[in-house]
Amino acid sequence: MNLKIGVIKGDGIGPEIVREAMKVLDLVGERFGHTCEYTELLLGGASIDVHGVPLTDETVEEAKQCGAVLMGSIGGDAKTSPWYKLEPSRRPEAGLLRIRKELGLFANLRPAVLYEELKDACPLKPELTEGGFDFMIMRELTGGLYFGERKTEEIGGVMTAMDTLSYNENEIRRIAKRAFDIAQKRSKKVTSVDKANVLDSSRLWRKVTEEVAKDYPDVTLEHMLVDNCAMQIVRNPKQFDVILTENMFGDILSDEASMVTGSIGMLASASLNDSKFGLYEPSGGSAPDIAGKGIANPIATILSAAMMLRFSFDLDQEADAVERAVSQVLLDGYRTGDILSEGCTLVGTKQMGDLICERI
Amino acid sequence: MNLKIGVIKGDGIGPEIVREAMKVLDLVGERFGHTCEYTELLLGGASIDVHGVPLTDETVEEAKQCGAVLMGSIGGDAKTSPWYKLEPSRRPEAGLLRIRKELGLFANLRPAVLYEELKDACPLKPELTEGGFDFMIMRELTGGLYFGERKTEEIGGVMTAMDTLSYNENEIRRIAKRAFDIAQKRSKKVTSVDKANVLDSSRLWRKVTEEVAKDYPDVTLEHMLVDNCAMQIVRNPKQFDVILTENMFGDILSDEASMVTGSIGMLASASLNDSKFGLYEPSGGSAPDIAGKGIANPIATILSAAMMLRFSFDLDQEADAVERAVSQVLLDGYRTGDILSEGCTLVGTKQMGDLICERI
Ligand SMILES: CC(C)[C@H](C(=O)O)[C@@H](O)C(=O)O
Ligand SMILES: CC(C)[C@H](C(=O)O)[C@@H](O)C(=O)O
Repeated sequence: MNLKIGVIKGDGIGPEIVREAMKVLDLVGERFGHTCEYTELLLGGASIDVHGVPLTDETVEEAKQCGAVLMGSIGGDAKTSPWYKLEPSRRPEAGLLRIRKELGLFANLRPAVLYEELKDACPLKPELTEGGFDFMIMRELTGGLYFGERKTEEIGGVMTAMDTLSYNENEIRRIAKRAFDIAQKRSKKVTSVDKANVLDSSRLWRKVTEEVAKDYPDVTLEHMLVDNCAMQIVRNPKQFDVILTENMFGDILSDEASMVTGSIGMLASASLNDSKFGLYEPSGGSAPDIAGKGIANPIATILSAAMMLRFSFDLDQEADAVERAVSQVLLDGYRTGDILSEGCTLVGTKQMGDLICERI
Repeated sequence: MNLKIGVIKGDGIGPEIVREAMKVLDLVGERFGHTCEYTELLLGGASIDVHGVPLTDETVEEAKQCGAVLMGSIGGDAKTSPWYKLEPSRRPEAGLLRIRKELGLFANLRPAVLYEELKDACPLKPELTEGGFDFMIMRELTGGLYFGERKTEEIGGVMTAMDTLSYNENEIRRIAKRAFDIAQKRSKKVTSVDKANVLDSSRLWRKVTEEVAKDYPDVTLEHMLVDNCAMQIVRNPKQFDVILTENMFGDILSDEASMVTGSIGMLASASLNDSKFGLYEPSGGSAPDIAGKGIANPIATILSAAMMLRFSFDLDQEADAVERAVSQVLLDGYRTGDILSEGCTLVGTKQMGDLICERI
């Protein structure tokens, strides 16, 4: 099979971690008889440096020609990088928001997994996480406050700024279906998170979610208020299977959840459209402070590549092989600095990539 | 001094915990030569049961005649209580939102304190909280998504729901000033939390906050994105002094923070207007599952009463006396069930109130 993959190396540690993921993909191709055809795409700071804008129309078109896109991480240090002297709409993040919208990537999957071997890095007391936890956040990615009308204007001499949070039933239905589809293949529980005691959009969210649930009699639906969910993720993360929520709540809760695992350098993510196309990226940021040092953890990006094989190219066996290799490397005691613990062997970005390749 | 105090006993455990706080207030009055004059006010479910609505105009007027209001907790079990069969605007929570707005309670203070004696209840590993932590969340309480225009309508045959997040510079300025005032009396650091890489309202928030900071040269201002803040509260709560944020972000982050302390039954909160008036309530909910059993923790409500003495009546000595008595009870090893740990003595709601009174 010929895999047409767009590659956004991105900013900060992006290029280093993407390089390792490409190495893994190439090896998988060799072993399983596929060829990877890469198209480099510029997004974020790297695009600003070349084109003056964080995303060009041409890049959008090129991305659409690919079967999937693998991305490092974008953005820089807001305090020091010249990118952040630009208007908000011209900064690196604006490119990311635009590509999500242009490619229709409405379903953002972010796993929160406590790796048994990395328990030491988990900030929670061991008794709260005994037996581990493994849940998935399904965040709506192209609606809500992120893409509503907004304006800043003087009203009666007073500066006033306004953003709108809007969802229609179709937007809610398609993401809810995705969440139930995934829950069906997991532990069959969806926790839909909203603020229905305050927001109209949340009340519609709850109503549509309940309608969708009727088509999945084997899946349990529960509703949880967002403030309570922020507590429950700390108090008892084991209770969750799939968390379904809107864009802004998902942004906050998924970052909280990834921190609770203690292994953000291990967490992949996928942003999917309504067919097979997806953008795959690590959950963590561009970490400009350690960029270029060869010490960043490439595993989240490598696992993102595995998700890509599985979701966009239907190559389950190949994805399994990558995920198994990652587990094996951890079992063998190799760690990058972010997940290092006593008795383990510290390795750099490239060496970690090599060690994973050796195990495929 | 004559203290005119409105009392909202509220729902669930509300009446039990408020009773203990009133006992403490009466004793403080005796010891320090004040009289407490209570006016019982109905809000939430208790008001629905009597008046059919969660808050009447008369109650609003009566509250305005008081120097401060002490509140238990409101609301019931959304799955079983008949209150939740009503329209959203007639449910218990709607009364709470309306009284905040009618009384102009724009400044919500919620402390997040790790009590040395209760470290066992903290969900975080001890190495993350060594030396304890003590920060304050200053949440804007009468603006943003909570009070913006909202509607649900059919647009081209598709149900669409919309909420608006709006802030003007005056609303931001007054809450920012409050945050800086408080930081000045603490460790002189304000972390303003927003989503300025996406929202117009956050960009105005950041701008006004920076303007206000100029009047407080001794206080450090830092900005943090809300998703990052949700991570940092778990990763390193010790870094914070005062967190300043808008209404919805504050709702989520303050609940997360209270859970991270492990002692939500200990956490007071105050909602203040632009003069001395305030509504004081525990951070925790109405816990309908344990209501009437005499086992709820009254300490958060008692500490809320202490905050009331301090902020609304300028009775610092009296407030200190209550806070010291609470510390002493903990040192003496008495605990309600929610904060019980090995070697401590389990006591009920009333006994805990008595033990605190004995130490004043
Ligand atoms: C960079 C930013 C705009 C983005 C978001 O808020 O969606 C990021 O935090 C994320 O979660 O992917
Ligand atoms: C009951 C609810 C409307 C309220 C809020 O969201 O403000 C509560 O969660 C709180 O934090 O006081």
